[in-house]
Amino acid sequence: MMGQQTVAQQAPHMNGLDVQAAFDTIDAIKADASLARFQFRARNTWINGGENRSMIRDFYGAGREDDSRTMAFEFTNGEPPVLLGNNEGANPVEFLLHALSGCVTTTFVLHATARGIAIRELSTQLEGELDLRGLLGLDDSVTPGYEQIRIRMKVEADCSHEELDELLAYTQQHSPVCNTVCRPVPVSIERTSA
Amino acid sequence: MMGQQTVAQQAPHMNGLDVQAAFDTIDAIKADASLARFQFRARNTWINGGENRSMIRDFYGAGREDDSRTMAFEFTNGEPPVLLGNNEGANPVEFLLHALSGCVTTTFVLHATARGIAIRELSTQLEGELDLRGLLGLDDSVTPGYEQIRIRMKVEADCSHEELDELLAYTQQHSPVCNTVCRPVPVSIERTSA
Repeated sequence: MMGQQTVAQQAPHMNGLDVQAAFDTIDAIKADASLARFQFRARNTWINGGENRSMIRDFYGAGREDDSRTMAFEFTNGEPPVLLGNNEGANPVEFLLHALSGCVTTTFVLHATARGIAIRELSTQLEGELDLRGLLGLDDSVTPGYEQIRIRMKVEADCSHEELDELLAYTQQHSPVCNTVCRPVPVSIERTSA
Repeated sequence: MMGQQTVAQQAPHMNGLDVQAAFDTIDAIKADASLARFQFRARNTWINGGENRSMIRDFYGAGREDDSRTMAFEFTNGEPPVLLGNNEGANPVEFLLHALSGCVTTTFVLHATARGIAIRELSTQLEGELDLRGLLGLDDSVTPGYEQIRIRMKVEADCSHEELDELLAYTQQHSPVCNTVCRPVPVSIERTSA
């Protein structure tokens, strides 16, 4: 639980977050759990070889279709030459590390703020191990996905090391991307003519 | 298995991929499995609130440190106003959809090429369902990650519908990001002073 409601009155902004808005959101969700339901979306178009591009704009959440974005975000996947590409962009497994690092960071900052902990500095380094034989179908005993991912976090904040360690454990248990990776999430793929 | 070696002699490039290079890679990995070992990396720095930025450049693979990238790729995570941000970038769970769409697409294109199937058009639409109560720690029975992700693929290629469906099932089983999501992958997080 986020708790410590009094922080909201004492410090309207902390770690760049609007503390009152955060607690208002939590109160609204406590009163109506349907406001917690979000659906995120992406559209991707193949370009050539290992190059493809996503458009990300609309999503549903807090009971309505979001309309805050005037333009779509665009991101290009590519591959390095050793994986038959021309570095048109980072590759998909690298983008997954970007997503994971960002989610762990934002989850940490959110719950630090809820606890009244001011963060001075926060950075992460990620490493993920992959065996290409899985992707290539050369050995069915080799998983095609990451075998494991290590995150090292450097953080300086106005609290004890014990509080940081507890907050980090809480973050790992509550980060959406971290839990999408460390737990099995069903993925369905279907062909469509639309 | 990728098979159909004769494609390499008949069509040096297919779907934008160097077919001979692809089969050379597979032959090299068959001869020395250590060449299949890759380590991908990201470094991320918190900026403010829900904004943070990743640098992605170096990786290890095919028996060496890659040096093909002269500059790092940079990507910014942000959040929309309803999630206390200013749309500084797509958010981490959206970047995960981008990674997933790109990986499914590239895996499909790779194995289509290995089978001698020419693709004319390929696009995907993704939707992922998330309940914010998990992230917020409001209900321990709610998973913080995606509950499920649906991918709809539109593809036009020079083969039968049956071959496309078989290729799509094979893609789902062999895509690295898809298998990182649909299977449990260990994530470790540790604090460091470095």
